[in-house]
Amino acid sequence: MPGKLAQLKPACTSPAAPANTTPAPDWCGRYREVRQASVALAEDLTPEDCALQSMPDASPIKWHLAHTSWFFETFVLEQTQPGYRHFHPQYRVLFNSYYVAVGERHPRPERGLISRPSLDDIQRYRVHVDLAMQRVLQKTASLDPALLGLITLGLHHEQQHQELMLTDLKHLLSRNPLKPAYRPLHPTVGHAATALSWIHYPAREHHIGVNAAPGEFIFDNESPRHRVFNEGYALASRLVTNGEYLAFIADGGYTRAELWLSEGWDVAQAQRWQAPLYWEKPGADWQHFTLAGMQDIDPAAPVYHVSYFEADAYARRAQARLPSEAEWEAAAAHCPLDGNFAEYNNLRALAATPGAHHTPQQLYGDVWEWTQSAYAPYPGYRAAPGAVGEYNGKFMVNQYVLRGGSFATPRSHIRASYRNFFPAAARWRFSGIRLARP
Amino acid sequence: MPGKLAQLKPACTSPAAPANTTPAPDWCGRYREVRQASVALAEDLTPEDCALQSMPDASPIKWHLAHTSWFFETFVLEQTQPGYRHFHPQYRVLFNSYYVAVGERHPRPERGLISRPSLDDIQRYRVHVDLAMQRVLQKTASLDPALLGLITLGLHHEQQHQELMLTDLKHLLSRNPLKPAYRPLHPTVGHAATALSWIHYPAREHHIGVNAAPGEFIFDNESPRHRVFNEGYALASRLVTNGEYLAFIADGGYTRAELWLSEGWDVAQAQRWQAPLYWEKPGADWQHFTLAGMQDIDPAAPVYHVSYFEADAYARRAQARLPSEAEWEAAAAHCPLDGNFAEYNNLRALAATPGAHHTPQQLYGDVWEWTQSAYAPYPGYRAAPGAVGEYNGKFMVNQYVLRGGSFATPRSHIRASYRNFFPAAARWRFSGIRLARP
Amino acid sequence: MPGKLAQLKPACTSPAAPANTTPAPDWCGRYREVRQASVALAEDLTPEDCALQSMPDASPIKWHLAHTSWFFETFVLEQTQPGYRHFHPQYRVLFNSYYVAVGERHPRPERGLISRPSLDDIQRYRVHVDLAMQRVLQKTASLDPALLGLITLGLHHEQQHQELMLTDLKHLLSRNPLKPAYRPLHPTVGHAATALSWIHYPAREHHIGVNAAPGEFIFDNESPRHRVFNEGYALASRLVTNGEYLAFIADGGYTRAELWLSEGWDVAQAQRWQAPLYWEKPGADWQHFTLAGMQDIDPAAPVYHVSYFEADAYARRAQARLPSEAEWEAAAAHCPLDGNFAEYNNLRALAATPGAHHTPQQLYGDVWEWTQSAYAPYPGYRAAPGAVGEYNGKFMVNQYVLRGGSFATPRSHIRASYRNFFPAAARWRFSGIRLARP
Amino acid sequence: MPGKLAQLKPACTSPAAPANTTPAPDWCGRYREVRQASVALAEDLTPEDCALQSMPDASPIKWHLAHTSWFFETFVLEQTQPGYRHFHPQYRVLFNSYYVAVGERHPRPERGLISRPSLDDIQRYRVHVDLAMQRVLQKTASLDPALLGLITLGLHHEQQHQELMLTDLKHLLSRNPLKPAYRPLHPTVGHAATALSWIHYPAREHHIGVNAAPGEFIFDNESPRHRVFNEGYALASRLVTNGEYLAFIADGGYTRAELWLSEGWDVAQAQRWQAPLYWEKPGADWQHFTLAGMQDIDPAAPVYHVSYFEADAYARRAQARLPSEAEWEAAAAHCPLDGNFAEYNNLRALAATPGAHHTPQQLYGDVWEWTQSAYAPYPGYRAAPGAVGEYNGKFMVNQYVLRGGSFATPRSHIRASYRNFFPAAARWRFSGIRLARP
Repeated sequence: MPGKLAQLKPACTSPAAPANTTPAPDWCGRYREVRQASVALAEDLTPEDCALQSMPDASPIKWHLAHTSWFFETFVLEQTQPGYRHFHPQYRVLFNSYYVAVGERHPRPERGLISRPSLDDIQRYRVHVDLAMQRVLQKTASLDPALLGLITLGLHHEQQHQELMLTDLKHLLSRNPLKPAYRPLHPTVGHAATALSWIHYPAREHHIGVNAAPGEFIFDNESPRHRVFNEGYALASRLVTNGEYLAFIADGGYTRAELWLSEGWDVAQAQRWQAPLYWEKPGADWQHFTLAGMQDIDPAAPVYHVSYFEADAYARRAQARLPSEAEWEAAAAHCPLDGNFAEYNNLRALAATPGAHHTPQQLYGDVWEWTQSAYAPYPGYRAAPGAVGEYNGKFMVNQYVLRGGSFATPRSHIRASYRNFFPAAARWRFSGIRLARP
Repeated sequence: MPGKLAQLKPACTSPAAPANTTPAPDWCGRYREVRQASVALAEDLTPEDCALQSMPDASPIKWHLAHTSWFFETFVLEQTQPGYRHFHPQYRVLFNSYYVAVGERHPRPERGLISRPSLDDIQRYRVHVDLAMQRVLQKTASLDPALLGLITLGLHHEQQHQELMLTDLKHLLSRNPLKPAYRPLHPTVGHAATALSWIHYPAREHHIGVNAAPGEFIFDNESPRHRVFNEGYALASRLVTNGEYLAFIADGGYTRAELWLSEGWDVAQAQRWQAPLYWEKPGADWQHFTLAGMQDIDPAAPVYHVSYFEADAYARRAQARLPSEAEWEAAAAHCPLDGNFAEYNNLRALAATPGAHHTPQQLYGDVWEWTQSAYAPYPGYRAAPGAVGEYNGKFMVNQYVLRGGSFATPRSHIRASYRNFFPAAARWRFSGIRLARP
Repeated sequence: MPGKLAQLKPACTSPAAPANTTPAPDWCGRYREVRQASVALAEDLTPEDCALQSMPDASPIKWHLAHTSWFFETFVLEQTQPGYRHFHPQYRVLFNSYYVAVGERHPRPERGLISRPSLDDIQRYRVHVDLAMQRVLQKTASLDPALLGLITLGLHHEQQHQELMLTDLKHLLSRNPLKPAYRPLHPTVGHAATALSWIHYPAREHHIGVNAAPGEFIFDNESPRHRVFNEGYALASRLVTNGEYLAFIADGGYTRAELWLSEGWDVAQAQRWQAPLYWEKPGADWQHFTLAGMQDIDPAAPVYHVSYFEADAYARRAQARLPSEAEWEAAAAHCPLDGNFAEYNNLRALAATPGAHHTPQQLYGDVWEWTQSAYAPYPGYRAAPGAVGEYNGKFMVNQYVLRGGSFATPRSHIRASYRNFFPAAARWRFSGIRLARP
Repeated sequence: MPGKLAQLKPACTSPAAPANTTPAPDWCGRYREVRQASVALAEDLTPEDCALQSMPDASPIKWHLAHTSWFFETFVLEQTQPGYRHFHPQYRVLFNSYYVAVGERHPRPERGLISRPSLDDIQRYRVHVDLAMQRVLQKTASLDPALLGLITLGLHHEQQHQELMLTDLKHLLSRNPLKPAYRPLHPTVGHAATALSWIHYPAREHHIGVNAAPGEFIFDNESPRHRVFNEGYALASRLVTNGEYLAFIADGGYTRAELWLSEGWDVAQAQRWQAPLYWEKPGADWQHFTLAGMQDIDPAAPVYHVSYFEADAYARRAQARLPSEAEWEAAAAHCPLDGNFAEYNNLRALAATPGAHHTPQQLYGDVWEWTQSAYAPYPGYRAAPGAVGEYNGKFMVNQYVLRGGSFATPRSHIRASYRNFFPAAARWRFSGIRLARP
């Protein structure tokens, strides 16, 4: 079967938990589960689907599959396994994303110029790395915490790339005039739109961020825990819907400069934005390209593929604003970590559940929520030493924080303190809008 | 004398303050003083100096002189003087900077394509506006506060453009291979560099921003006053000096990617930065282009013409960081509004005064200080209604806040809560570095 | 075997030539032979090799395979077969190259964004078209000459794309840091470089161009036959060699502005040319990327992958010039149509045969020879009516004529009057240098 | 009077011609006359008019005035006057246009960044050069012919820049929303459009080009005289008129891709051409910006400010083509050197004179006529040795030849063999259309 990636076989036996003890974390199982999820995402794709790059911001699926393996090879196997044999000596350069400390890199906009290694080669590369990692993981009891930290980082890194695989694939397929579908959609219960209400939060001092407990994983950008003062505010009870956004468009949202930030207006004019990315109007009604091909727009479902600029303009017309990340986190810290996550395979955002709610709905999953907060270090932030320290800190400029994860985010990957970040003009990510107001 | 702008004659008599009353503000005098300062800046310039535009970010001097007059014509005279006769019907478009609500604008990058109106014409335009404004100002006692607010805004707006005139002129002259001087420098007392010490501030809640009292002027972006929580921090006792920055360069500051934000590194590579803007190394030593032509670099004077990216990289190497704007304002609120301002005509930043100090020196004047804070609305911020509401709010994205004013800022224009903002890559403004650390 | 294209089976029986008559042209055989040659070129390639586009000027192999089929579908099957069923309704847009009269086109720089149809789909598309064409070709005796002309044009068009397939594939593989080989080289007899001599031609009037005889195929740009006057000139006895070009480089050929056309110098500086395209200097010596991977440079073989600008600069240093196309054709008209053509599968240009020669060697095959002639219509030129009239005429500006074919040109495709044309800065085609002088 | 250039006083006495001898050429008078014409063109301009640069292709008037003086300083005074004192040491770099052999150059797109030297400085520079040249010219009897050749070249060079001054000034003024006029137009006799007829020329061999006789001046690109063969052709009796071009527009000339060269269509789309440069349609009718401001379009006058692409598209719709330069020259060689030249100060092209004509009208003056000939060296062409050899030859690529001069060309500057050349997309020159056909 051309283009299929082999299923990773259960490779190491789960440690049997002795009676009456805290069960040791199942490192082998966790590793296998995350790695397998990447392979499963590419299962129905052709070698060509996996090789193409549709824009400099996106990467080929093949590259994602290789780069996530490169991470383990470079930061775990190379560092800890004397005599580790590289699968291919040049992959070190070829699949380095941006780690300057690791050495030379293949330029990002040229990731789509690499017809070889083939998808089959990359599959073999993954197996090669997995087998070596298996040998490492069987000895986790004796591994030092720093190494376990790197392995955990590698797994969370891979989960980030799983979301990117869907993000980038959607962009690629959208550029094809045949508008091919990735997969058919699961049928879901269709809710009508629920009325938007406001949840109020009084002015007070909060702690946000996290200081990682031993064995707990967080990204360095989530720490340290520190104090902020939030003046009183309210959050919308749910995400902005397609139906509401259609009203924004109908009301001249894309033609009224006074609603927009100046830079946003310039970008919107230059790129001729008239609706969210992937929206088209072949006839009287807007449709949008989805992972299941062109579809009608569900007015009750959350709008997404909007930039910070569009989210901000929408909020301005609604006499509201975007929440700050401190406001969002203070609210989310008390909400169950529950939502429309990658594990449900819905491949799209869904309408909010009707009914009365005392906390905001859809905080987790569905779509990433733009905040008005520029991505910046927390007071006392320190990047990790060495190459992995390049993971987060060096992007802390001209980006805006998004919170909460999306339908393409694994549940095991997200939490209240999690900080994602995109440039203000980015639209190809699964980004939507929650309103706030004083 | 070609190219000279007429001195504005005292045009309205200062109101005589009756005994035993609070003297009424001298609106005529204040107007005359600010307007005259603009004219004085251009006094030694040729028509050609005033007509050229050296890059899209900069504007011709002639345009600054006209646009500041346009502001009074459009927001005061047009609105309040029935039958006001425009000096020229097309100036309304020609000298609109970015006020979409006012109507059509001449494109910014084409401001340097306008050989006519000549500098003489613009001079006559200024006189025309001043005479009409004089008639308005003579009746200030009966004017409504909103109009007085607009007049005050117009004067502060003109002061901002006075600083821009020097900024833009310096850029233009720098592009000339003949490296012409604007004016000779005043001799000043040359201080040696003083040692840098740290002033510590404990963790606590602060109020920052201002709610304007009646008759008090602030820009809308400084309000409302609100609470923030600053974790404990320290500020450097003075600005980073040229001598310190030379050490940064010598230590590979421009060649070590690990010191830089990722986007900053890309910009620095693409634009081949090797030193601050205007620095050149014709022989063994760096020199810099100044408003007095090419000059040796004073190691004790503050470094400036650095971008946010350079300021951040410098701080990282120094194991420090940039202050947040809340940290800066909390410290500055208790310092005297004193420094090397435009009124002293020094035309450059000067070395800090030696001696022991319990508060940071050079907070005001000398050079604008980059903060690590993205320019964003304060909680509860509302833009002013109408076209003047476009003044600040619509630029609140992808810009960083600078504080404290420079040697080109009038003292009467600056205060602790004043927020300036430039893009992270901007270098042609008078921007320097103050360090902070936990 | 994924990615292999099916071999086209002999699909129609060759007409048996009755005794004592001129044998009818074997249309079926000729069609099969040309179509099969395209498939054979892609035989060893992976689906990924065939899907990627390395620059806007180049196209994916898959696109070449589809577009050449589209040509027959659009200009033969659609026009002549009532009820012809298209393989896919959207291929008409997807695989149109530039024929405005045919309707909408998919943008050229986006040919590499089409992961689907897959290579397998394109293979099926080819078979679908071939079967339909077979039905047409079995009736060639009754076909009108215009239709036969279109079929012949389609075959020559496909031969042009066969050369482009190698040209574009070479560019793609060259961008891969792994420097993969397309195929290994046949061993050949290695000649040492022969001395360059000059063949002289007296001043006289010539006829150039062709008026096609019935049944003879030429491109419209080769006609009409017309008179030119050539002043006396001499042509070099062979192509410029790599060895000679190395001397040009060593002599500062890429650093001496006086050797270059002004525009050429600007391009060379902007693109940092230091040698022909694909040349690299990993150590002390230049190597070049070839269809067989990185190889040492054979000093006796012709230099190629040079632009018009480089050819012109080389000639200027040699106190010579490039020939005009009239000079070239006048000389070639009397030479045998013989040379290193695609049929020999050498995949590269070869050294000239040693010995005394009275006519220029290597006129045909090896590398396309830049002439100094801009590509222009011959006096009396008329483009063909309809969409095929867009084939040649609309490119007659800012291009330079090349003559003689290359090692990737089929022998059956070339002739003395054949006019190829590239922009002066193009280097990814198989273009080399022959000198001329008065 | 600011901005006025001093009139050059008669500086050297004309040599008295002795009786019975051929009068010696009046070098002083000729020099004075040409130099004075440049000054006269700038007479009514302000310093600002003379300082601005509206696009990289155009230069400031001040630059033209300086560069033409630089030419004499560099190629005559420096070379021949030991101890010649330069007016300013840096002008050598500042006012070099493109002569690589002379040394460093100031970049062309930055000519508009030079506010100093002022227009007054340049005026003094001209006087300085003129006084030195006067000393040279008083000794012409004893000067060697090479030097006299350089002086003559300098005068012709200056005449070329006189035309460019008007060309560039028109572009600058056109970018000003106030649409200022350079000078009012002279009234002229308004002719109605005359019918277009065809003048036929039989097929035959011609000589074109010139071998300069002693004392005769030609540019190097006009030589050597050589043979060409022209197949039979016809030339239009007059230039294409605005009225005819309006019909082309009305007939969809700018929306029908089939009329255009492929590259021309792309340029026209990218730059949104809908009419010749400077044409605007504020109401129901087209108007055009002229040196006298916005004016109605005279349907009988020749169309100009069209690119090669537009000229070619117009010709294609008219079932005609552009003439080759050999066809044009063969016809013009027998026509009187007569037409609407710069000396008449008409500042625009004029309608052809009605009546019967046996030779084409308007061949000289009015507008430059695009030919279909790419600019290339004549057989046997040799560039002049040294820096002046950079005058012509290095531009012989991707440009098209124009013939005949324009209303801005001095009569003493033009002749039948004169070859002008612009890129195919250029529209800011005074370029129009004459049709040809077989």
